[in-house]
Amino acid sequence: MNDQPTLYTSLSPALIHLYDLKDTVVVIIDVFRATSTIAAALYNGARSVIPVDSIPQAIKISQEINGIAAGERDGKLAEGLRHGNSPMEYKRAFIEDQTLVLTTTNGTRLLHMALELGADDIVTGSFPNLSSVCNYLLQQKKNVILACAGWKDKFNLEDTLFAGAVISRVKEHFSIHCDASFMAQYMYEQNKDNLLDFAKNLTHYHRLVNRFGYIDDIDFCLKADSADVLPLYKGGHLVVEKNA
Amino acid sequence: MNDQPTLYTSLSPALIHLYDLKDTVVVIIDVFRATSTIAAALYNGARSVIPVDSIPQAIKISQEINGIAAGERDGKLAEGLRHGNSPMEYKRAFIEDQTLVLTTTNGTRLLHMALELGADDIVTGSFPNLSSVCNYLLQQKKNVILACAGWKDKFNLEDTLFAGAVISRVKEHFSIHCDASFMAQYMYEQNKDNLLDFAKNLTHYHRLVNRFGYIDDIDFCLKADSADVLPLYKGGHLVVEKNA
Repeated sequence: MNDQPTLYTSLSPALIHLYDLKDTVVVIIDVFRATSTIAAALYNGARSVIPVDSIPQAIKISQEINGIAAGERDGKLAEGLRHGNSPMEYKRAFIEDQTLVLTTTNGTRLLHMALELGADDIVTGSFPNLSSVCNYLLQQKKNVILACAGWKDKFNLEDTLFAGAVISRVKEHFSIHCDASFMAQYMYEQNKDNLLDFAKNLTHYHRLVNRFGYIDDIDFCLKADSADVLPLYKGGHLVVEKNA
Repeated sequence: MNDQPTLYTSLSPALIHLYDLKDTVVVIIDVFRATSTIAAALYNGARSVIPVDSIPQAIKISQEINGIAAGERDGKLAEGLRHGNSPMEYKRAFIEDQTLVLTTTNGTRLLHMALELGADDIVTGSFPNLSSVCNYLLQQKKNVILACAGWKDKFNLEDTLFAGAVISRVKEHFSIHCDASFMAQYMYEQNKDNLLDFAKNLTHYHRLVNRFGYIDDIDFCLKADSADVLPLYKGGHLVVEKNA
């Protein structure tokens, strides 16, 4: 068993430096909602998604390439932008053949942190593209870090549940000695048949639904394989990896 | 309900800076084994426990005050010390009226981090003193941070389970909006009737039992209220708070 690749779960961006990201597949997980939105946009024909870490940068780059600047701060549309971080905004009629330049509070920030720590094989994952992520991990046969974006460095459960869903499907193929992975898998397996109900316990659910009314977003973000593509980071862009 | 004090769970020392520790009870949790050992030593009549962050400091201070230097690094007896971090070492015949000067990989380090972040009401908790911790929190009526020591900044489940045990008992008296607290309570309530069996899933169990044979320690550290005192930090010492 010892020649199997390892798998660890990092529960917060503030813990990602504890893991070796080189020669490792890093799965960026921001279920509510960046990595769900990225899957939706690419599934609906976006040419690519450029994750950037500031609003001015999103505006600047989108102007240079004639793309769509979009983003979120504190759960709502970022000031100065006309498009937000809802997967519902990126239907095919709007996003096909477009490039989305996206900045969010947690997910795109974590992706940049991973790059700075030397990650060289980054994909993004959420329930809408669960199968593609699992297939890629099984195909690559490399060590894996499931990197949860959390909320402003705090632990959140929705990213943990997705990590658990991945582990639940791929665990036979990895050497896993990690309490965070064990807990993630446990929480997922106990609640997988009623994720939408279970989500009502989460702080982010209250932020999104009670404050902003994004109930359709929650539904989409927790449903497996409704936008099943693999966003792979290549030269500044997230693009669909066709072989996954 | 909004006038209730808040309760949050910090899952790692690397996340503790995210919380406001002022005018807050900070419960340092290092179930395997520092905070179990602290409870055992004080319960068995130690005058106090001085938590220090280095081995040389433990030796120096113990010489100055004629105390007992003790500590652990990487789960085993620290080099240069004759006494370790096992609660089993601190029976009454040995520790009564003595002062223990203790340094450990995670727990004593986290206590010093909390002090540096301005914490002014610090207690230590583990299953052996569960009731005392809960009583103190209910008595103080202040905001609470349950601070898990983890393992070298990584998440661990045993500290989480203890946080969950506390939450399970005190939750009606606090305003809790924190996914980490929800998860901790969930993991504890699902597994509270067979903690010892469940512990076999934990990475630290393997480190302590399979590598070092500390099965009695595990048993002690997971049993509620067998050393039920409240260690309160006062002027460099952890001493029994009699009014708790």
